[in-house]
Amino acid sequence: MKRFILYSDLKPEKVQDYIDLHANPWPELIELIGRCNIHNYSISLRGTQLYTYYEYTGDDYEADMAVMDNSPVMHRWWTYSKPCFVGHDRGEYYEDLTEVFYCP
Amino acid sequence: MKRFILYSDLKPEKVQDYIDLHANPWPELIELIGRCNIHNYSISLRGTQLYTYYEYTGDDYEADMAVMDNSPVMHRWWTYSKPCFVGHDRGEYYEDLTEVFYCP
Repeated sequence: MKRFILYSDLKPEKVQDYIDLHANPWPELIELIGRCNIHNYSISLRGTQLYTYYEYTGDDYEADMAVMDNSPVMHRWWTYSKPCFVGHDRGEYYEDLTEVFYCP
Repeated sequence: MKRFILYSDLKPEKVQDYIDLHANPWPELIELIGRCNIHNYSISLRGTQLYTYYEYTGDDYEADMAVMDNSPVMHRWWTYSKPCFVGHDRGEYYEDLTEVFYCP
């Protein structure tokens, strides 16, 4: 199991849109995430600061991410979620955090 | 299982001390954490911003926290860790984050 811990900033005027969007995620999105071996996926908010935690349990992260990134469901989701972020693309708005402690 | 996601600020001049302290945690501290039903405990850093994630798997959080808080090991650990935080006590320096999305 590999942990991913990401930081990103939301546009202040888009925080509520982001909250509303994620309050009732589409079942087909949840299914896609699980199918791509992403679990225990938790997103938390502090003002405009977003903290994303997830675990990858598969054995080919690149391939699973490609499935996710090429899925029509994900593209539809992004039309709503991407405008909420500061930055245009995931590589731009997600910042990997440095894990300084882990206790299983 | 209940997730806890916390935010806190480190004093800029204490960031390296905090990193060094957590790079080699004492085995008796790790044992204590597990015994108190805290698992998957991950601390990540972004500048002076600290994000703490852990899961509680027991059935009496207050009682387990009391064991932890009254342990001599923890008190010894705090003599090193507490001075790194902005704020004096855990209630003061830990801020609960709002979880806006969860996917198991």
